[in-house]
Amino acid sequence: MSEPSELAARAEKLDAEDELAGSRARFVLDDVVYLDGNSLGALPAHVPGRIEDVVRRQWGELRIRSWEESGWWTAPERIGDRIAPLVGAAPGQIVVGDSTSVNVFKALVAAVRIAGDGRDEILVDATTFPTDGYIAESAARMTGRTLRPVTPAEVPDALGDRTAAVLLNHVDYRTGRLHDLPSLTAAVRAAGAVSVWDLCHSAGALPVGLDEHGVDLAVGCTYKYLNGGPGSPAYLYVRHGLQDRFDSPLPGWNSHAEPFGMHREFAPASGAMRGRVGTPDILSMLALEAALDVWDGVPVEAVRAKSLALTDFFLECVEAYVPAGRAESVTPGAHAERGSQVALRCADAGQVMKELIARGVVGDFRHPDVLRFGFTPLYVSFADTERAARVLADVLDG
Amino acid sequence: MSEPSELAARAEKLDAEDELAGSRARFVLDDVVYLDGNSLGALPAHVPGRIEDVVRRQWGELRIRSWEESGWWTAPERIGDRIAPLVGAAPGQIVVGDSTSVNVFKALVAAVRIAGDGRDEILVDATTFPTDGYIAESAARMTGRTLRPVTPAEVPDALGDRTAAVLLNHVDYRTGRLHDLPSLTAAVRAAGAVSVWDLCHSAGALPVGLDEHGVDLAVGCTYKYLNGGPGSPAYLYVRHGLQDRFDSPLPGWNSHAEPFGMHREFAPASGAMRGRVGTPDILSMLALEAALDVWDGVPVEAVRAKSLALTDFFLECVEAYVPAGRAESVTPGAHAERGSQVALRCADAGQVMKELIARGVVGDFRHPDVLRFGFTPLYVSFADTERAARVLADVLDG
Repeated sequence: MSEPSELAARAEKLDAEDELAGSRARFVLDDVVYLDGNSLGALPAHVPGRIEDVVRRQWGELRIRSWEESGWWTAPERIGDRIAPLVGAAPGQIVVGDSTSVNVFKALVAAVRIAGDGRDEILVDATTFPTDGYIAESAARMTGRTLRPVTPAEVPDALGDRTAAVLLNHVDYRTGRLHDLPSLTAAVRAAGAVSVWDLCHSAGALPVGLDEHGVDLAVGCTYKYLNGGPGSPAYLYVRHGLQDRFDSPLPGWNSHAEPFGMHREFAPASGAMRGRVGTPDILSMLALEAALDVWDGVPVEAVRAKSLALTDFFLECVEAYVPAGRAESVTPGAHAERGSQVALRCADAGQVMKELIARGVVGDFRHPDVLRFGFTPLYVSFADTERAARVLADVLDG
Repeated sequence: MSEPSELAARAEKLDAEDELAGSRARFVLDDVVYLDGNSLGALPAHVPGRIEDVVRRQWGELRIRSWEESGWWTAPERIGDRIAPLVGAAPGQIVVGDSTSVNVFKALVAAVRIAGDGRDEILVDATTFPTDGYIAESAARMTGRTLRPVTPAEVPDALGDRTAAVLLNHVDYRTGRLHDLPSLTAAVRAAGAVSVWDLCHSAGALPVGLDEHGVDLAVGCTYKYLNGGPGSPAYLYVRHGLQDRFDSPLPGWNSHAEPFGMHREFAPASGAMRGRVGTPDILSMLALEAALDVWDGVPVEAVRAKSLALTDFFLECVEAYVPAGRAESVTPGAHAERGSQVALRCADAGQVMKELIARGVVGDFRHPDVLRFGFTPLYVSFADTERAARVLADVLDG
């Protein structure tokens, strides 16, 4: 077992060698160890100035003219194209807007419609974040399909001629387990079904490869690893080959081929715009656009390498510092199965997290017994990581 | 016919007597006559400072703690209760979030479910803003009902045992016609159907009286007369008596009775919260909350009185200044049938509006031949009104 001084020295060395270390200065941070960027990303330092311009000049001075002159109208697709390289998508396939839940509904209903009438079953990841399950149940009810909850591991065997669509989480919000997107997507496709991936806990933390792996539809939020701000709008990916068949259950005026034609009959827009609904939420959307600047010149592969190094190091520090049996990792040890968080199961986890926060280490608690620590490679250091494990050990010792 | 000098003098007198004149100073305005507040309300002067606090302190410094400490979590219902008095609703019935289109979908599907299986027809205002019709068509398709477009005047005769729900606009977005909410709501109720009102063009401009008139469900946007900012979140009203039967087609984790319980099974929250879906969009929502401060101490009745005085005066000025036959009002002359805008039909309306804007009078153009002028009593003066008509006459003369 390593000594504290040895791990601290190693943290220092790892930080000195970290090619992403420079990104940290682009965020507003204090002396807190912030390991909750998988819930709410930290504020990029240049965002307040950009928002002030949006509010004072674009809204306050240009007012209605900003829909054209400040590019408000085109924001949903323009910002979608900024997210695209982070999830391995060519331009023109992502639209930003609405919440993740609303986008899950659009994607799943559209998926069922693409699959056609002969397929009457929706498979949903039973370990997923609850909202996906609730929304999937509504989508199944409203399209006359049966919802069948399965674990991702059970998906290959559950697939069949009846399968219309499969909704999966790329990374489990609780355990941090990374599911095998390439092979599961291939299996869904081989069964003739339509895949829908929820990228909330993977986008911005690891390469997703939507185009490369032939994903059909995907959704994700932008306030975690993409640092878009509290409740910033989510996004929807529809691969090029399916866009003409994307039949939205929420055909608002913004998704009309001629939105200002004010026609009585609905005629869907082509491309990513078809995924829009109502008037885009400009303040939050442009905060997100500004926040995405921190990704300029940052390869997702480098982010993934650092993420794994951070979670490896955290697990090592926890093992070194925390008394045996006091906290057990429920996050997979294998890199291929790990997202960018470490979840530790421990007794009295809610109280432990309160104490950690009081001592300057911010993670979060997930019912009933999980301590969740998210590692955002753009601003979390190895020194932060060592300190978090050390403080955790102190709390559990106390 | 009045002389220009006479009307200008009258404008001055009316402004001097205007009890709402003081509100104008609460907004950022310049020497433009802004008659497009029915599309995007002007910026309240104190909003930028409030947004800066939300971004720099609440997000930047408190980060995740703000969900509790800055009241982010409770914002959708808290802000709903701020809107409530403006539309005549007691507290606890309005939730803020999502776009108007998404809320129309929630409301209409829920209305059909409340009406029950025996009723298979949805009536929709055929003159309504197109998005309501598109979304109604989707709601009908997904609930197995038939959509029947009617004009508001045809509603009483169209109502019957088959009618499940009726979606109506309070004020027509194009003509500015105000529909008779009390009598139409009573007729819908008498037929055993459920009423859904779209308040986009009435809330903040005139008294609505949701509770008083027994409206079942209502939706509205907040970026027009409520000045919430571009694309600010919409709201949903569900009257107390129906809340337990409100069965949302978008049951996201935020509408769960125990949102942080992360339960597999959905159990709906009680009250207005049941209308939520996903994570609330905090920046836009708190900009709206700040913007609502301009209503403190302002009775909607006073707003309505000034609104009618402004549109009366505008029509009088147009008649006095504009050559006969060059522009025809499609807005009803009767007060009981008029919202807070004047729509003029004229040849080459698109080009005329461009010229008006170039000369400092901002309204908007609605396809194919309508000039739309919105009168927002909190910041439009009678002098603005007289000037707008004068400039319009110049443009049409030139």
